[in-house]
Amino acid sequence: MGKTVVITGVPGVGKTTVINGALAALEKEGVSYQSINFGTFMFEVASQEGIASDRDEMRRLDQDVQRRLQRSAAQGIAQIEGNIIVDTHCTVSTPKGYLAGLPEWVLRELKPDIFVLVETDEDQILSRRLSDASRVRDMDGYMGIRDHQQFNRSIAASYAMYSGCTVKIVRNADFLLDKAVADMVEILR
Amino acid sequence: MGKTVVITGVPGVGKTTVINGALAALEKEGVSYQSINFGTFMFEVASQEGIASDRDEMRRLDQDVQRRLQRSAAQGIAQIEGNIIVDTHCTVSTPKGYLAGLPEWVLRELKPDIFVLVETDEDQILSRRLSDASRVRDMDGYMGIRDHQQFNRSIAASYAMYSGCTVKIVRNADFLLDKAVADMVEILR
Amino acid sequence: MGKTVVITGVPGVGKTTVINGALAALEKEGVSYQSINFGTFMFEVASQEGIASDRDEMRRLDQDVQRRLQRSAAQGIAQIEGNIIVDTHCTVSTPKGYLAGLPEWVLRELKPDIFVLVETDEDQILSRRLSDASRVRDMDGYMGIRDHQQFNRSIAASYAMYSGCTVKIVRNADFLLDKAVADMVEILR
Repeated sequence: MGKTVVITGVPGVGKTTVINGALAALEKEGVSYQSINFGTFMFEVASQEGIASDRDEMRRLDQDVQRRLQRSAAQGIAQIEGNIIVDTHCTVSTPKGYLAGLPEWVLRELKPDIFVLVETDEDQILSRRLSDASRVRDMDGYMGIRDHQQFNRSIAASYAMYSGCTVKIVRNADFLLDKAVADMVEILR
Repeated sequence: MGKTVVITGVPGVGKTTVINGALAALEKEGVSYQSINFGTFMFEVASQEGIASDRDEMRRLDQDVQRRLQRSAAQGIAQIEGNIIVDTHCTVSTPKGYLAGLPEWVLRELKPDIFVLVETDEDQILSRRLSDASRVRDMDGYMGIRDHQQFNRSIAASYAMYSGCTVKIVRNADFLLDKAVADMVEILR
Repeated sequence: MGKTVVITGVPGVGKTTVINGALAALEKEGVSYQSINFGTFMFEVASQEGIASDRDEMRRLDQDVQRRLQRSAAQGIAQIEGNIIVDTHCTVSTPKGYLAGLPEWVLRELKPDIFVLVETDEDQILSRRLSDASRVRDMDGYMGIRDHQQFNRSIAASYAMYSGCTVKIVRNADFLLDKAVADMVEILR
């Protein structure tokens, strides 16, 4: 039985850098993880079922269809053998508010063992976002990022209640990437 | 299929003013919402069933009966066609602690699309409550109001996990009612 | 029908002192509670089933077995007549993150009426832990204790959503034990 570790963080927190650093270090120890992006996996399900040919089309599907797809994706991921990292959003900040990345019907199928929140100070996230001109994002301010990170902690607590997963916070602070990678290795080892 | 939007806020936050302003603006755009007070609707159910003749009597019913009534009310509201606003409490602050406004058995039936928290700074809520001598309320201090608003955000996160609704925070700050109304219009449009 | 009150607090908050003070005061009023430690009760279940002979052994059982034991313990406690206090953890801080003390399958069986968080300022907890050399604990710093208490509030909110219990915060501040005991008496009376 492998471990299922869900890794999340708000845009600009440097989640991917931390994951890649940790996976490289673990490979040297002979510990391997398959890394899965939840959105990509879900699109592949939609694509195989012939109900969406690109991701924009998938986002425009009826809410009921989207939820069914999320559930099928979670079921599919749960069947994968060995250790897996699921790269997804804790919540997505939409014009209508925060949307759960792991709603009840996903948690029930995915049954994560560990849920990781990669966090850092709001001003560091803000300056990382400002320096990344290539990505078009709604520009939250300091307060918006703080609220989003706080809301993520709260919803992560409800994930822990409902699924029994542990919730681990990993800080990815400026100049301390090595520390963040070491913390992540500790969790995944 | 209409939208179901739940709107909440601690006493004194000015929720009703924001809702009314938004509904008036939307009417000019031809967008209409039916506004339902959850407590009133639930009392009507109790009244029709002949188990309570006034709201105090309803509050003294057995916990099991109250929960069944909550569930019936949620089922009844879910059957209403078109867009609806459900005016209710995120949590109620009681002598025994915070009580969920939308417990599991309500969420399951109501299936809200959007959950709105109307918030503002604690000192503004405090001065609005102090100036409203007509309403007899347990007088929370600054810290009590802060704790209540924070707890509301946390439980709203669990509502998002369990029902899939988005959670949107609308600030109703002093001198900025127009901004709050415009934000609410954006959510309801 | 008795009341089921779950009482929690991070290590060093002085939970036991507050409970004992409240129970002594209530006894004088003729109000009695049976006090149950969740972990001890669960170990007795494991022991009776012959699957663990000490608590360390219980902790090393398969996750599925542990969850089944938690559920059986919750069922057993729920069958006890009269008022009961369940002494347990809101969350446990483990190397893999925060673990829910009352996950979904426990809440569903236990059906608590009131959930109490005993809290105090982080620096007071820190100095109480530092002065208690007899207990070997991972030494969290100020920020770790703050994060743990905040996470406990968040998950308590999800407990309220899922079970319908109220969530009450009792402050156990230095030099104000009498106040904490009086608050607890008010909740349990």
